[in-house]
Amino acid sequence: MAELRRDPIGGRWVIVDTDHPTKPEDFEHESHSWRGGVCPFCYGNEALTPPEIESFRDPHTSPNTSGWQVRVVPNKFPALQIEGDLDRRGLGIYDMSNGVGAHEVLIDTPYHHKDIPDLLNEEIEKIISMSCRRAVDLGKDKRFKYIMIFKNYGPAAGASLEHPHTQLIALPMVPKNVMEEIKGAHNYFEYRERCIFCDIIRQETQEKERIILENKYFLAFCPFVSRFPFEIWIIPKKHNSDFSHLPPEEIPALASILKETISKVKKVFANPAYNLIVHSSPVNGDSGGVEGYHWHIEFMPKLTRVAGFEWGSGFYIIPTPPELSAKYLKEVK
Amino acid sequence: MAELRRDPIGGRWVIVDTDHPTKPEDFEHESHSWRGGVCPFCYGNEALTPPEIESFRDPHTSPNTSGWQVRVVPNKFPALQIEGDLDRRGLGIYDMSNGVGAHEVLIDTPYHHKDIPDLLNEEIEKIISMSCRRAVDLGKDKRFKYIMIFKNYGPAAGASLEHPHTQLIALPMVPKNVMEEIKGAHNYFEYRERCIFCDIIRQETQEKERIILENKYFLAFCPFVSRFPFEIWIIPKKHNSDFSHLPPEEIPALASILKETISKVKKVFANPAYNLIVHSSPVNGDSGGVEGYHWHIEFMPKLTRVAGFEWGSGFYIIPTPPELSAKYLKEVK
Repeated sequence: MAELRRDPIGGRWVIVDTDHPTKPEDFEHESHSWRGGVCPFCYGNEALTPPEIESFRDPHTSPNTSGWQVRVVPNKFPALQIEGDLDRRGLGIYDMSNGVGAHEVLIDTPYHHKDIPDLLNEEIEKIISMSCRRAVDLGKDKRFKYIMIFKNYGPAAGASLEHPHTQLIALPMVPKNVMEEIKGAHNYFEYRERCIFCDIIRQETQEKERIILENKYFLAFCPFVSRFPFEIWIIPKKHNSDFSHLPPEEIPALASILKETISKVKKVFANPAYNLIVHSSPVNGDSGGVEGYHWHIEFMPKLTRVAGFEWGSGFYIIPTPPELSAKYLKEVK
Repeated sequence: MAELRRDPIGGRWVIVDTDHPTKPEDFEHESHSWRGGVCPFCYGNEALTPPEIESFRDPHTSPNTSGWQVRVVPNKFPALQIEGDLDRRGLGIYDMSNGVGAHEVLIDTPYHHKDIPDLLNEEIEKIISMSCRRAVDLGKDKRFKYIMIFKNYGPAAGASLEHPHTQLIALPMVPKNVMEEIKGAHNYFEYRERCIFCDIIRQETQEKERIILENKYFLAFCPFVSRFPFEIWIIPKKHNSDFSHLPPEEIPALASILKETISKVKKVFANPAYNLIVHSSPVNGDSGGVEGYHWHIEFMPKLTRVAGFEWGSGFYIIPTPPELSAKYLKEVK
């Protein structure tokens, strides 16, 4: 019989198919197909992006020329724009606002075909450091309440360019799911005076069966209440609500666990599309209740396509139990 | 500049791209590709499904033979199973339960290639009547708290069989998104003593620009805070919280607006995959607060694939403003 599981943070129930679990080879494999054309993220094409905001680059090279390792530019087609004050107003029963915010693209690497598993640890550390720097910088703007950092890899995951990149969106409000996560964690904290994420780490470390990888500072595991098959969380073992203030000594450990985790996923599935989302605390907040919140990364390979239904209903059926996903990922060399 | 809009029911903010709206021809078209094999839903293959639960069929024909117009069978691979009592228990920090529920498939028509726009109004009325009958019947089981009725059309929308069909899942708990919708509507009702959906109908009818179709009993419109491009709601004009107790005189009007709406979508897009979800009040409820709730259908053509990110963050970017979607749909003949 299938199993129903309840997310202890948000209270969502999901159905886990423990009877006929879907094996990795049963998921349909989709090859990535890209539009051709000149890549604006490759060396020599720097003029094809808006002028860079920040970069790590070889000394004696100039902005907007090659010689960079990580490069941040404004998104050419931003979802939100940086100019102007937030202007909230009503429209009968509805509420609206102008689209103030920021939308930046962090080009992960000069190499068009190198995703995280193909990079050196030091190169991944640069992506992480730059993400933190940009989050800190954007957070200084008092109009913004949340800095969302995420990565879409592959067209099936929503990427429109092949060259690996990460996106940052600064929002004038905290997204609903983030707010719910924070509230859920805060309720638990009020009741137990403990961080729910720390308690999850404790239970997962004890039970072991959903853990994929572990190092001094981080844990990678398939959450008990996953919403997607082979969903993975990467979480710092030491309590910290804010990704952008990641202690420098934790950066190499994060780079290494990220690289190893995604390598494992790519060995189980042939180069699947994926989404990676950093869940971190809001900025400039009187949003309250960040107590008990704990930053983490949610990683989701794009294996199934039952989108609209789950989207619309909030009701998830997980074809592969997380215990089994973790087993596959753990065992692959 | 883009526009931020807030859903008055759930409080979710979305970004609407009013600057560079995506036109219908800009969405990538995906052709449906199906696995071959004998169709278990066609006439003559009745033995390939579990025995039928109920059907509308020609007099003098026997169950599980041809001669039916609409046929309901248990799902061969059910997400939940009908036997047993609900057994909720804790597992450390987590909560779980066995998978008690029901999962039925309503075969819409004997015709393998006829979707709703290709059927006669009377045939669609039979699908609606049977959906209501099954929902009423499943609702008699006191273990169930919610009857979810939905339709996935096309592989991109999660359908695994080509032959048009509808699904019913009876759940031992109310799904999170439904609960939020009910709570949001109830809060509004407590504050204003009016149904928020009735107020939305009033405002949309006044503003007109998002309305696609209207008849005596129903309205089809693109909601002000859509989460998907070309999302459409079909809502009864007369307040009613429960789809399964649809007044008989409204059934022909619903069949006709459904047929016309989906026909329009199929004229704007070449036979797109879609999801259709009935949002109705819970059953056997002490869930409270159904006051102010109003049943409706949410229809979402599957045009974009930016799934995981929105899924994971709850943060939606709408490439086509609903006003523009409604205009395209209204104008197509």
